[in-house]
Formats: sequence, structure tokens, C-alpha cells
Amino acid sequence: MNFKEELNKKSELINDLLKRYIRSQECPEKILNSSVEYSLMAGGKRIRPILIISTYELFREDIEKTFIFDVAMEMIHTFSLIHDDLPGIDNDDYRRGKLTNHKKFNEATAILAGDSLLNYAYNLVLNDIINNNEIKERKLQALYELSYGTDRMIAGEYVDTEYEGKEILSEYLEYIHKNKTGALIKASVKIGAILAGASQEDIDKLTIYAEKIGLAFQIKDDILSEIGDAKEIGKPVGNDKEREKCTYTTKYGLEKAQQILNEITNEAIEIISEFDNSEFLRELALYIANRNK
Amino acid sequence: MNFKEELNKKSELINDLLKRYIRSQECPEKILNSSVEYSLMAGGKRIRPILIISTYELFREDIEKTFIFDVAMEMIHTFSLIHDDLPGIDNDDYRRGKLTNHKKFNEATAILAGDSLLNYAYNLVLNDIINNNEIKERKLQALYELSYGTDRMIAGEYVDTEYEGKEILSEYLEYIHKNKTGALIKASVKIGAILAGASQEDIDKLTIYAEKIGLAFQIKDDILSEIGDAKEIGKPVGNDKEREKCTYTTKYGLEKAQQILNEITNEAIEIISEFDNSEFLRELALYIANRNK
Repeated sequence: MNFKEELNKKSELINDLLKRYIRSQECPEKILNSSVEYSLMAGGKRIRPILIISTYELFREDIEKTFIFDVAMEMIHTFSLIHDDLPGIDNDDYRRGKLTNHKKFNEATAILAGDSLLNYAYNLVLNDIINNNEIKERKLQALYELSYGTDRMIAGEYVDTEYEGKEILSEYLEYIHKNKTGALIKASVKIGAILAGASQEDIDKLTIYAEKIGLAFQIKDDILSEIGDAKEIGKPVGNDKEREKCTYTTKYGLEKAQQILNEITNEAIEIISEFDNSEFLRELALYIANRNK
Repeated sequence: MNFKEELNKKSELINDLLKRYIRSQECPEKILNSSVEYSLMAGGKRIRPILIISTYELFREDIEKTFIFDVAMEMIHTFSLIHDDLPGIDNDDYRRGKLTNHKKFNEATAILAGDSLLNYAYNLVLNDIINNNEIKERKLQALYELSYGTDRMIAGEYVDTEYEGKEILSEYLEYIHKNKTGALIKASVKIGAILAGASQEDIDKLTIYAEKIGLAFQIKDDILSEIGDAKEIGKPVGNDKEREKCTYTTKYGLEKAQQILNEITNEAIEIISEFDNSEFLRELALYIANRNK
């Protein structure tokens, strides 16, 4: 199986897992549940749960032990997208070529759908930990990492919003990227490693790999937001510049941003190559740097 | 110590606990942290953590074992208030006589402050569970109850919002009250009982008490929203009627609502009286029914 086939297969697996947790359309809050389902199944790349599974696979084969975290991670990521798109924050009408949640439903529904997804992620994992004695301590540690990553992601989103249209120091730009996108990517890799029982030394190395690809992911997003194909990425391009949003491309220019992207991708590949069976994670670093959406 | 003195003492204790968890004002997200602090310290009645502590005290004296849950519960309650007040939901300018979070700061800050509080509540408890081996299983079960109550609270808030201005079946009214306000009140009592190691039989009895006072709390809120003193309750009265919001008073009229309130308060007192040392929880049921703010 080549990289693209494996990526698609893993992405399909995540979609199937998510479908298991879609809630009743026969209850007073049925429209809330529909709105959650709408955003959850809107066709994301599922990079974060794929990172959990693929990091776990460096050490063990029984990937079903990661499933509840795969679902929880994608729920929390989806919550963050729904809230970021809100009129009070980025005020975006489209995401992945589809109407954003508040445009498809309404603002109250989008706020509460995001809240519900964030909270339900914890509810699901806690239920699993209570009713399943396997690797309980590891799961608790992994859930803590999820909560920490989410905390940093929210802080990063806040600082990004606060500095929109303002001159920004490069240390703040780094802070935003490290937290807003990087925190959940880092948490995903750490969760995979913790669940697999990796040594602290291995967790530390993998954390550096995760930091590199997290930063690469955001720089690539910045580049695509400026010069990507609007049809491919599913939202208008050039918005960031218009809003005077601080990004790698508005701060450093396109050429320098691309250069940084290449450098950190190479660094990530170097670190992950120290692990056996790491071909997929090497290819994933390249995929993040080279994707067109 | 009489009831009022004990209530104030417990409320002060909660305020002191919350202050311990206020975060840095020296970081890129400092305004986000200020906004969280603003709403957290805006002078709530702290009924939910007081219920955790007072239920725990039916069984044990070492109430410090509940502290992290007292803080987490009040954080989640505060998150729900910040989001409910948003322009996209209730669009309220005042709460407890102070500007609502989005009026004092801005909408983006209020959305993210709510998100941050909800998530940080889990982060704090998980950190405590990982680093402290005492009553670990009870704490896990209690955290699950917190997540379940929060899930139901969000669903109740959604249905409340969805039916604003619409004719509503009384089963939906009951659903809204049971979930929107009742779910976290019930969770508080259950958390107190679970942490104390109460028997399932006792937990079941206390759950019924909690359901009664939860409903009483919401009916009293409905009554105060219609005929309360705006200065005492800190927001305009008569808003619910104007918005055609479905409440006990708009549905049943003031007299009938008051009658239901008295009945369920008496039922709650009857149940809690089966426990030794339950005087405070008896008085609390009366306080909920008779408060003027």
C-alpha cells in the first residue's frame, strides 16, 4: 500500500468511527445534533487522529485502543473550527467548500454545537476509562494531554484574533502558530505515543517531530490562504491579507515562508527517521508541506 | 452558626478557591485571562459548589477532597452564563448588575473565554487525578458526572433557544428546565455523594432531592424574571415575556407557578430529612424557593 492509499484508508477509518458517535435525530435537541453531524462529517483531512494512530503504530499494532481518542480529538478540532468561523471571530461563510455551521444553521446553534462537541469529547473518553480497565493510567495521561493541547489551542486562537490588523512582533507570530495549530498536532502525537507505552525519551523525540510538522502545517495554510486555488481549499483566498491578519506570508513574504517550510519539513523527517517503521510519518510530513488544500 | 452565616462562609470559601486558579496577566493571552477572571469573580451565589460540599458533609468532614470539583463546577457554570449572554443567543447586556462579558470585552473574547473555562475545568481535575492517588476511582466517576451534566445543560440551553417565541408543549418546558438548570445542580449533589463514597441507595435518594431543588431553582428564576426587583437581580425584568420565552410563569401564570414551587420544595425537604445532619440542605431548599435575587 503506498502512502496515498494508506492515508485514504486511515481517513475512511476515522469517518467510520465518527459515524458511530453521531447522536439521535429523535429528541428535543435533534437540530443541535444535526448541526454537530454536519460539521463533523464535512470532509476534513483527519490529520490529527491519523497522527494518533500512526504514532501508536510505531510501537504497537492494536490500534483499536486509540479509537476513542481519535474520535475525541476530531470532535475537539471540529469544535474549534465551528467557533473560529463565527461572526464574532473570523466571520467566514465557507469552510471546505461548504457553508459554515452558523450559515447553514444559525449562530446560537453553531455556538452550542461547538460547546457540545468539546464537552462530549471528554464525556466519551471518561466513559471509556471508567468502563474499561485496559491501559487506564495511560488513557488518563492521554486525556490530560488532550485537555492541555486544547487549552493552548484556545489561547492561540485568542491571540490570533486579538492581533488581527495590528503590527505584530515575530515572537507573537510564533506563539500563535505554536498554539493555535501546533498544540493539537503535538497533543495527537503525544497521545499516540503515551497510549502505546513509549519511553519518555521516545515521547520527547516525537514531540519535536510534532512541533516541526505543526509549524509546517500552519505555514502551508498561510501560503494556501494567499496563493491557493479557492476551489481546492474551499474558501476564498487573499482574505488574510485583506484583514491584515498576521501570517508567515504577510510577515515574511511568500518566498521566505516557503523556505522556512522546506527547512522545518526536512528537520521533521530527520527526527522521525530515527524510528523503525516510520515511513508513513515521513511521508506525512512531506504531504503536509506539499498539499494543495 | 445559622444558615445564612454558613451560606456566606461557604460562598467565601468558593471565592477563595477560585482565586487560586486565576491565571497569569503576563502572557500573550492576558486579556483572555482577565475576561475569564471578570466573569468568574462577578459575584455568583456559588450554589453548585456549595451543593457539592454540603452533600459531601452529610457523610464526611474532610471537604478539601471536593475542592478541585468545586472550582471546576463553578468554571463550567460560568462558561454557560458567558455563552448564554452572547448576542447570538440571549443577547443580554447585564448579568448580576454588571456588564456581560461580551459587553465588557468583546464577542470574540467572550466566546473564547467560555471555551477556555469549560476546557480548563477538565484540565484542572485531570491534573489532580493524575498527580494524587487518593479516591482516584471516585474522582473519575465524579468527573464523568460533571461531563454528563454539562452535556445535558448544553442540550437544555439549545432547546430553550430553539423554542423562543414559539408555542411549546409542557413536556418540552419540563425538558428545558430539567436540563438547562437542573442538570448541573443534579451533577453537583451526585458529585458530593460519589466523592464521599455514599451507597448507591443514598445517591439515588439524593438525586431525587437534587431534581426537586433544580426544578425549584428554575421556577423561582422564572418568577423573579417577571416580578423581581431589577436592582436586586441585576438585570431588567419582564424580558422573558417580551421575548415570548417559554417559562413556568408565561406557561402557567404566576399563581400556579408559585404553587408548584412550594410543592416541590416541600417534597425536597421531606427527602433530605431522612439524612442525619441535613439541616443545611433543608434550609438551602427553602433559600432557593424564597430568595429575592
